[in-house]
Amino acid sequence: MNLNEFLNEYREKVNKTINEFLVEKEEIATKEYRKDNAEFYRNLREFMLRGGKRLRPIAVILAYKSVKGDDVEEENIIKASTCVEFLHNSTLIHDDIIDEDSLRRGGPTFHVLYEKVFSYLPKDRAKLYGLAFGIMGGDELFNLGFEALLTSGFKGDELYEALGYYIEAYREVVNGELLDLVMSVSDYERLLIDDYLLMVRLKTAALFEKSFLIGLALAKAPEDIKNIFSQYAISVAEAFQIRDDILGLYGEEEEIGKPVGSDIREGKATILVILAFKYLPHKEKQRLKEILLKREVTKEDVYYVRELLKKYGILNKAEELSESLIERAKEAISSLEINEDYKELLLALAEFVVKRKY
Amino acid sequence: MNLNEFLNEYREKVNKTINEFLVEKEEIATKEYRKDNAEFYRNLREFMLRGGKRLRPIAVILAYKSVKGDDVEEENIIKASTCVEFLHNSTLIHDDIIDEDSLRRGGPTFHVLYEKVFSYLPKDRAKLYGLAFGIMGGDELFNLGFEALLTSGFKGDELYEALGYYIEAYREVVNGELLDLVMSVSDYERLLIDDYLLMVRLKTAALFEKSFLIGLALAKAPEDIKNIFSQYAISVAEAFQIRDDILGLYGEEEEIGKPVGSDIREGKATILVILAFKYLPHKEKQRLKEILLKREVTKEDVYYVRELLKKYGILNKAEELSESLIERAKEAISSLEINEDYKELLLALAEFVVKRKY
Repeated sequence: MNLNEFLNEYREKVNKTINEFLVEKEEIATKEYRKDNAEFYRNLREFMLRGGKRLRPIAVILAYKSVKGDDVEEENIIKASTCVEFLHNSTLIHDDIIDEDSLRRGGPTFHVLYEKVFSYLPKDRAKLYGLAFGIMGGDELFNLGFEALLTSGFKGDELYEALGYYIEAYREVVNGELLDLVMSVSDYERLLIDDYLLMVRLKTAALFEKSFLIGLALAKAPEDIKNIFSQYAISVAEAFQIRDDILGLYGEEEEIGKPVGSDIREGKATILVILAFKYLPHKEKQRLKEILLKREVTKEDVYYVRELLKKYGILNKAEELSESLIERAKEAISSLEINEDYKELLLALAEFVVKRKY
Repeated sequence: MNLNEFLNEYREKVNKTINEFLVEKEEIATKEYRKDNAEFYRNLREFMLRGGKRLRPIAVILAYKSVKGDDVEEENIIKASTCVEFLHNSTLIHDDIIDEDSLRRGGPTFHVLYEKVFSYLPKDRAKLYGLAFGIMGGDELFNLGFEALLTSGFKGDELYEALGYYIEAYREVVNGELLDLVMSVSDYERLLIDDYLLMVRLKTAALFEKSFLIGLALAKAPEDIKNIFSQYAISVAEAFQIRDDILGLYGEEEEIGKPVGSDIREGKATILVILAFKYLPHKEKQRLKEILLKREVTKEDVYYVRELLKKYGILNKAEELSESLIERAKEAISSLEINEDYKELLLALAEFVVKRKY
C-alpha cells in the first residue's frame, strides 16, 4: 500500500463523514432553533471543509487498522476518527482569536467571518460579536467531536478509554497553548530546550499521539503497542515542529504561506531562538534580543538573524535535533509487532510529516 | 426533609468534591507541566469556589435520589453531579468575556484576573493575554466536567446516556447565547414571545433540565418520569428568567447586585421589552425604542420605562406569565410517582428558585 493513496482515500472518507454530520446538525438547528443557529453550523462546516490534510483522523484509522487488519467494517472507525479533527479545528478557531489572525486555509478565520456578518453594527460591536461567535464556534466544535466519538457505534471499555484520551488531548493542548503564551513573554535566556520540548509535546504532539491511542483503544490493542505508538507519534510531532520553526525562517514565502521571519517579528520562542540563547556569544545574544523585542522588525533584521544562526551552527543543531527525533520514531516502529504493510505506512508517514515544504 | 437543609448539606459536599478534583489537577500540573499551569488550576479553583448556590449539581443529586431513595452510596453521584457545575462555570467565563464584565461573585472575572497577572506587559498585550486565558479557562472547565462525569464510577448504558445529556446541554447553552446576541441587535418590534422563550429555554433552562436528566439517567429512571422532570425544570427555569427580568427593572439595587435598569441600558430583549412592543400604543413604542437605542440612558429614562410598563399592564402580564409557568411546574410534579418527601422538595425548590429576591 502506498502512503499517498492511503491518505487520499481516507481524507475523502473523513471529509464525507464530517460533512454529513454537520449537515445533520444544520437541519436540526433549522427545525428546532432559528435560522441564525442553522447558519452557525453551515459556517462551521464551510470552515472545516475548506482544507486540511486530516492527518489526525487518518492516524486514528491507521492505528486501528494496523491492529485489526483490513477486513473490518470501516463506518464506525471513520466516524470515531473525526473527533480529533473537530478538536483540532476547535483549537484553531480559538488560537486564531488569541493570535489575532485573520486568514486560515485561504479564507477568513472564524471570528473574522462573523465580524463581517455583523459589519452593519458599529465597528467595536462588530468586533465583539466576531469574538463572541469565535468563542462559541470553538466551544461547539469540541463538543461535536465529543459527540462524534460517543455516537460512533463503539461501546463498553474501548469507548470509555477512547473518551479518556480525548479529554487528555484537549487538556494537553490547552496547557501547551498556555505555555506557548507564557514563553513568548519570558526572558529568552532562561528558557531551556526542555521547556520548548514540553510546550511542543503538549501543544502539537499530544493530539497526534492521542489520535493513534484512540484508534488503538478502539481496537483493544495491548499496552506495549500503545507505548510504542506514543513514542513514535511524539517524536514525529516534535520533529515536525522543529522543521516548522526552521522553515519559518529559512523557507520560501510561497512554500510556507506566510512572510518569512514572522516568528522573529512576533518574538516567539522557537527552537532556533532557544538554541541561539544557549550557544551564541554574549554580544550576538544581545543583538538578537534587541531584534526580538523590536516593534518593527525589518527585512534586514531577518536576514541578519538567518546568517547569524547559520554562522554559529544553530541551524545545524536544530536540523540535527529534528533528524535524531525522526530516527527515534523509526526505531520505535521497527520494534513493533504489526503487519509489515502498516509498518511501511508509518515509516512513510514519519518522512511525509517532516519532509513537507509547506 | 427541609429544602434549606438539603441545599446546605449538598452544597457543602459538592464544593468539597470540586475542591479535591481541582487540587488533584493542580498537583498533576505541578509535577508534569510548569508552575504557570499549576497556577491556572489554582485560579480556576478559586474562581469556582468563590460562591454559587450549586443548584445544578443539587438538581442531579435530587433527581437521582428521588428515584433511588436515601439508602444509596453517595460518592459517585456527587462526583458525577459536579459536571454541570463545571459546565456552568465554563459558560460563565466565556460569557463574561463576551459581555465585557469585570466582576463575578465579588471578585474579578476570570479574564480580568489574568489581565491583572499580565499587567506588567503593555496594556493591549495584557488585555489580549487576559482574553486568551479566559478562553482557555472556559475550555478546560468544560473538559473537566466531562472528565468528572466520565470518571464518576458509573458505567454502561446509564453513563452513556448521561454523557449524551451533557453534550446536549452544552450545545443548547451555546445556541441560546447565540440567539441572545442576535436578539439584542434585532428589530424589537419583530421579536415574538416564542423567540424569547426559545432563547431562555436554550440559554438558561436547558442546563437545569439536563441536570435532572443526568441524575435520572444514572438512576436508570423510566422515560415517563424523565418527561415530567423535563417539563418541571423547563417551566421553573423560564419562570426564573422572567422573574430575573422583572427584578432587573423593579428590584432594589442592593437586592439584585447590579444597577437597576442595566438591561434597558444594554438594550436587551427582556420579556418586558417584548411584551411592551406587543401591547404598547404606537407613540409609547417609539419612545421606548429611542431609550433602548440611546447611548446614555439616564435614571429618569429608567423611571419613565418603569412607570410606562406598569401603567399599560406590561408588568402584570409578565408576572402572570411567570406564575402560570410555576403552576405548570407544580402540576407536573403532582403527577409524578415518587417518594412524597422528594415531591415536597421539588415543589419547595420551584418556589425557592422563583421567589428569591437576589
